[in-house]
Amino acid sequence: MNTHSTASLPGPGRLEAFSDGVLAIVITLLVLELKTPHLVAPDDAREALTVLVALGPKFLSYLLSFLFVAVFWINHHRFFRLVQQVDTGLLWLNILLLLALSFVPFPTSMIGEYPNNAVVLALFALVLMTAGLAFNLMWRHARSRQLYHAGVSPALVARATVRGLVGPALYALAAVLAFVLPPAAWVLFSVIPLFYALQRQGSTVE
Amino acid sequence: MNTHSTASLPGPGRLEAFSDGVLAIVITLLVLELKTPHLVAPDDAREALTVLVALGPKFLSYLLSFLFVAVFWINHHRFFRLVQQVDTGLLWLNILLLLALSFVPFPTSMIGEYPNNAVVLALFALVLMTAGLAFNLMWRHARSRQLYHAGVSPALVARATVRGLVGPALYALAAVLAFVLPPAAWVLFSVIPLFYALQRQGSTVE
Amino acid sequence: MNTHSTASLPGPGRLEAFSDGVLAIVITLLVLELKTPHLVAPDDAREALTVLVALGPKFLSYLLSFLFVAVFWINHHRFFRLVQQVDTGLLWLNILLLLALSFVPFPTSMIGEYPNNAVVLALFALVLMTAGLAFNLMWRHARSRQLYHAGVSPALVARATVRGLVGPALYALAAVLAFVLPPAAWVLFSVIPLFYALQRQGSTVE
Amino acid sequence: MNTHSTASLPGPGRLEAFSDGVLAIVITLLVLELKTPHLVAPDDAREALTVLVALGPKFLSYLLSFLFVAVFWINHHRFFRLVQQVDTGLLWLNILLLLALSFVPFPTSMIGEYPNNAVVLALFALVLMTAGLAFNLMWRHARSRQLYHAGVSPALVARATVRGLVGPALYALAAVLAFVLPPAAWVLFSVIPLFYALQRQGSTVE
Repeated sequence: MNTHSTASLPGPGRLEAFSDGVLAIVITLLVLELKTPHLVAPDDAREALTVLVALGPKFLSYLLSFLFVAVFWINHHRFFRLVQQVDTGLLWLNILLLLALSFVPFPTSMIGEYPNNAVVLALFALVLMTAGLAFNLMWRHARSRQLYHAGVSPALVARATVRGLVGPALYALAAVLAFVLPPAAWVLFSVIPLFYALQRQGSTVE
Repeated sequence: MNTHSTASLPGPGRLEAFSDGVLAIVITLLVLELKTPHLVAPDDAREALTVLVALGPKFLSYLLSFLFVAVFWINHHRFFRLVQQVDTGLLWLNILLLLALSFVPFPTSMIGEYPNNAVVLALFALVLMTAGLAFNLMWRHARSRQLYHAGVSPALVARATVRGLVGPALYALAAVLAFVLPPAAWVLFSVIPLFYALQRQGSTVE
Repeated sequence: MNTHSTASLPGPGRLEAFSDGVLAIVITLLVLELKTPHLVAPDDAREALTVLVALGPKFLSYLLSFLFVAVFWINHHRFFRLVQQVDTGLLWLNILLLLALSFVPFPTSMIGEYPNNAVVLALFALVLMTAGLAFNLMWRHARSRQLYHAGVSPALVARATVRGLVGPALYALAAVLAFVLPPAAWVLFSVIPLFYALQRQGSTVE
Repeated sequence: MNTHSTASLPGPGRLEAFSDGVLAIVITLLVLELKTPHLVAPDDAREALTVLVALGPKFLSYLLSFLFVAVFWINHHRFFRLVQQVDTGLLWLNILLLLALSFVPFPTSMIGEYPNNAVVLALFALVLMTAGLAFNLMWRHARSRQLYHAGVSPALVARATVRGLVGPALYALAAVLAFVLPPAAWVLFSVIPLFYALQRQGSTVE
């Protein structure tokens, strides 16, 4: 299918396709954590409303994780547009990234169930931080091993590797804040995907 | 893989592939909301029949959501056949669409469990309405930003953007009807996918 | 991506890819119906063995459905190799097929739980029969609308459409046998995938 | 899409794509076996920590199976890079492999729940051993039927078929050790994926 010269490793195309598959599945599986609530009076609209409102933290955690994974999907593509070659190191860093992202449904469900529990919020923050760090390591690894296309500007890569630390740093902060002021952790969880969404890594390739 | 000129955004091909993946997963996950019912007498055929008949609303809600997602898959493809370029706005509208569609299993399970509950039926209607509106916004956005192929007739796009509001309007009606006459909401839920299936958006490209 | 002449319908490639996705998901989701059994004494190897042996019908139903879907995947590809064009009718017959196959995890779980219940066994048989009939209708539809590649021999299609009825007929028989002699239905469930696997539809294209 | 000469069988591309899909789904579904634990005091950080620590064996079994499937994905690709043609035998051996890998979530959940149960640990070992053996049979089958590309060195294939038995042999050993010293089985489960990861099958194609 490709040349045989890099036959020992999946090419960027396959790695991207596999990662796409995993991300599409994670983003869709999240809904399975939303269990049908029990109504004492099945036809009582008022009770249904009360029960649905009480599920608020679950809906919010669902939304946050959905956006988080969606933003990762976008940035993952932007990254692989720049990459010409995949070596063993990049392959395993990508698997570490997929591991962190595949794990997301568990802490998502946890914070939806226990939205004021410091340890639970910190777990969520640490899992997302791990994903962010794994991705940042991918940027750095590809730079040090010169895996980018020839036309990719070093300045762009330098900016991306610096910006890519902002997310993990904010998640680390959220993990700490969880123990002091849980709502502040929720605020950070809501803000960080927006930051990633707007950071336009790799937005120009010259 | 593609030209580097639009390197900052996933091309239509990748966006379509990712959306396809999500839709294939949603449509297949719906079955997980059908839990194996409990039989007091495991070998009693009569009891099994009674129990299965009692699951009628669940089977119907499964079928309706399956068709809804299937019709969306078809129309999503028809739309992207016409699109030449994806910009940030279209990307995020598409993610909003996927969010609404990925969420469908939750209200599907809810109406199967509480088929006469006004709030539950309205929730189902509002989620499907959101999906329809997100898709309609995609049509409008692509028009205002001129993202269509050169050969796509403006009349076709104009018709599609108008017709694309019929579905959401009917779902809004279903949300209201749910509070007055729940069975009427079910009738609308059954009729709307047929409407979408037959509307042949983008059926001619000149 | 393709020519615009058939822009109103997904091409065979996309329909195949979407169907592949659904089948890959169904075949993998089946395992979720196997719940971790409860052990009174967590470390008791003997109890674990007893419990696992008691799960025999669940493992067997898992295996049968896995093979059934796998065989469908193979034959689905063989069919689409022969098809040049997809029209609306074929599209909707394929969606009917996917509906039946996506539903398979539910009756699979049911027969695993209630392996001697006539109604449950008949439900499983009818779902698989529906899938077989939908596929057979696809063969017939493609013939009557001349959707096959020019080189496909009419004799091959004629043989396939006849052979394609053997499976559904045997499932209908299994549905009847379920009420008379449940183990006989199980025997048929085990034999039919083998029949499909060996029938080599479309094995020669001249 | 391809030539019609092998129309009776899915080409390596489709088989690979389907296998990729199944592996991506399996690896992502594993997380569903991690159920949200119950906290008596929802806001008690200490209790959350205790409960999460008690889930240690579940997290470890999740991690081990994730790595196992990831390594299989890599080696599966390496194998198919070398294969030019897929015959019926290879197709069915690949389906056997997918069957074993799709089943992995069940024993994974079992060892997470009952980490000291000899029969449960042996079941996990036997499922992974089956996957390894199926893969080894694929290597052997492709050799005996000459399905490899012309340029693939016989020495490479010979090494791979020998090395490919080390994993299954170690899993067989783990199954035995489970009855004597359960922790030793866990050690083997942790070590074997590393062995596979490092064995670089097909790393050179001359």
